[in-house]
Amino acid sequence: MPEISDKANLMPESPIRKLVPYAEKAKKEGRKVYHLNIGQPDISTPKEALEAVKNTDIKVVEYTHSAGNESYRKKLAQYYQQQGINVDHTEMLITTGGSEAVLFAFNTCLNEGDEVIIPEPFYANYNGFAITAGVKVKPVTSSIEHDFALPSIDEFEELITEKTKGIVICSPNNPTGYLYSEKEMQKLKTLVQRHDLFLFSDEVYREFCYDGKAHTSAMHLEGIENNVVLLDSVSKRYSMCGARIGALISKNKDIVANALKFAQARLCPPAFGQIAGEAALDTPKEYFDEVYNEYIERRNFMVDALNNMEGVYSPLPKGAFYTVVRLPVDDSERFAQWMLSDFHYNNQTVMIAPASGFYSTPGLGKDEARIAYVLNIEDLKNAMETLEQALREYPGRTVEQTASAERSRQ
Amino acid sequence: MPEISDKANLMPESPIRKLVPYAEKAKKEGRKVYHLNIGQPDISTPKEALEAVKNTDIKVVEYTHSAGNESYRKKLAQYYQQQGINVDHTEMLITTGGSEAVLFAFNTCLNEGDEVIIPEPFYANYNGFAITAGVKVKPVTSSIEHDFALPSIDEFEELITEKTKGIVICSPNNPTGYLYSEKEMQKLKTLVQRHDLFLFSDEVYREFCYDGKAHTSAMHLEGIENNVVLLDSVSKRYSMCGARIGALISKNKDIVANALKFAQARLCPPAFGQIAGEAALDTPKEYFDEVYNEYIERRNFMVDALNNMEGVYSPLPKGAFYTVVRLPVDDSERFAQWMLSDFHYNNQTVMIAPASGFYSTPGLGKDEARIAYVLNIEDLKNAMETLEQALREYPGRTVEQTASAERSRQ
Repeated sequence: MPEISDKANLMPESPIRKLVPYAEKAKKEGRKVYHLNIGQPDISTPKEALEAVKNTDIKVVEYTHSAGNESYRKKLAQYYQQQGINVDHTEMLITTGGSEAVLFAFNTCLNEGDEVIIPEPFYANYNGFAITAGVKVKPVTSSIEHDFALPSIDEFEELITEKTKGIVICSPNNPTGYLYSEKEMQKLKTLVQRHDLFLFSDEVYREFCYDGKAHTSAMHLEGIENNVVLLDSVSKRYSMCGARIGALISKNKDIVANALKFAQARLCPPAFGQIAGEAALDTPKEYFDEVYNEYIERRNFMVDALNNMEGVYSPLPKGAFYTVVRLPVDDSERFAQWMLSDFHYNNQTVMIAPASGFYSTPGLGKDEARIAYVLNIEDLKNAMETLEQALREYPGRTVEQTASAERSRQ
Repeated sequence: MPEISDKANLMPESPIRKLVPYAEKAKKEGRKVYHLNIGQPDISTPKEALEAVKNTDIKVVEYTHSAGNESYRKKLAQYYQQQGINVDHTEMLITTGGSEAVLFAFNTCLNEGDEVIIPEPFYANYNGFAITAGVKVKPVTSSIEHDFALPSIDEFEELITEKTKGIVICSPNNPTGYLYSEKEMQKLKTLVQRHDLFLFSDEVYREFCYDGKAHTSAMHLEGIENNVVLLDSVSKRYSMCGARIGALISKNKDIVANALKFAQARLCPPAFGQIAGEAALDTPKEYFDEVYNEYIERRNFMVDALNNMEGVYSPLPKGAFYTVVRLPVDDSERFAQWMLSDFHYNNQTVMIAPASGFYSTPGLGKDEARIAYVLNIEDLKNAMETLEQALREYPGRTVEQTASAERSRQ
């Protein structure tokens, strides 16, 4: 029996999904599990998108253009223009989710052995894409002590070697909810210019910026147009993660032309998803206002509830719909599993994503977890009550240590 | 401006799609272009599939399971059982088209620098997937002189080195339409066993076997269950190439478990496509009978027409909906481009896929082209008449040489 590949052995299991069997077991035992572990919003997909798919009159579900339907790209270019991002339809490829956009970007821009710097904690699947592309991730740590702000440029500089080819950022951030300020983006620009690096900018949470904060896109930064690759997705914007529609966008014509070759090899992005994506561009403003208000309410409620639990600390995220919290536990992975296997409260339990899977540096994030506020307020209330109870009962609770650590940091 | 990657530079442009700009120009000039160059059937998608999508009542287009919806996998397992392929739903992953199945298989089983042997001419995108995965393709040539039968096992043996990890086959074959006999499949089995190789078997044209010939799946071969990876797709079976739904199937639990990690990184296959794919399994037998009769009629008409043209030779393909023909031209790529740019007949022209892009050995296939019979008989008639006229007028025609070559071979 031949052996599987080194890459396959290196590929991490999804830190978000590896607890799934425990959750399934809890459900089979009749327990309600509140899923705070995944970025799957409960918000309805815009009816414009759903109806376009339902009303389609195609008779043959044909391959589309490898770059995506031209009508969709043209309309999408208008959307970006409205965001102050000056692109036309020839400067983008429609991809199969944001995932494929990341993979195309890495494959197009990076050689086997090249290094990319990523502020950690970061979206865990970047690891998978880096391994797939043979690229090495060098983490620069952002910490909960600074509410996950951009690490200093000096810290980036220390990591730069001859192999460094790019920086990957995600703002608003998954998992932390941190939104880079314009000032932070300008610092990144200087760094990118100084070392002529690629800047891979994952902006799939663009619409989720709170408290009046503006979103600064990497494509707003003047002078590094040939360095920036924008990675995007309709998944969160229109709550249609399953459509698998994203985009790779760049002013650098070489990047788009070469990414197209990878796109041609896989023929085309999904036809039905493109119909939904194109129609979703007609979603009225009221939809986003409603969604915005809903998330603000959820965030405020949840972050308050978390910070009122003994020994728990959550920053106030300015974007996306996650927060990374510090928990008074010995090991958040053990705690998460324990909640699913050995704990219930009113026959309910909670599923969270241990943060260690979002860090690349071994040992970091052991007392942190990513919590998503993708449930309605009523469910969130039950989930917070259940989580608080779980923290009280958990045998590996470390509240004294954490409480003193909290004090020493203040 | 940072440089793009070596992989991107290596990635070939699709030989099928690189003539597209010439075709677009011809169309803009008001010419009718018959597309014999692509595997996009004109056959209607089964109404069962289309209606399932149109009638869906989902409110939120959520992520599905990374391995694909369990209900779909369970029903798909029944389909395979009916094909004499003994698998259950845990032995498969639903993929984003057959393309992703190939990529997952390569990434899971092969290391950077490993070699796979592929009978050429072969589906050109295998090159793209091999480059993406850092794998080297070693071609073993099947020739039009033998109607593209499996090359001898000795020829395979000569190519085997320490780096050889697998063999890729496609039967019924794209581009040649050749269908491996059970005897040929048994030979491959012996080879796979002797060297403990992976056998990647692309069987997306399984339903398209003609003249009473049975399809032998690699999963019918006893004793190499841990070596076989079946690569499949709904694209051709149900004429829904744009749905982007395929499958990776193996009895080797290691392969499926590790491929799942790549699947988790990209989250899930398309939700709408899975709805269509699951419903398509209820397509009545009459649909396939009709499709079968249609393709038989087209094949017989087209192969006859081709062989009646002076200096043209086409084998009689036993499967799929392509044939690779020998043409009396100096260079089939130049000829294909010339037909689009400099030729028209009754304001019509024909687009074919030059065969050189399907060969890995430089120089081979220069006087061959892949022709797909994916148009209705009426269009095929016009296309054949137009092609014949083009061959008469083409300045690079080599009919004398080819005719004598034909004679010398008989």
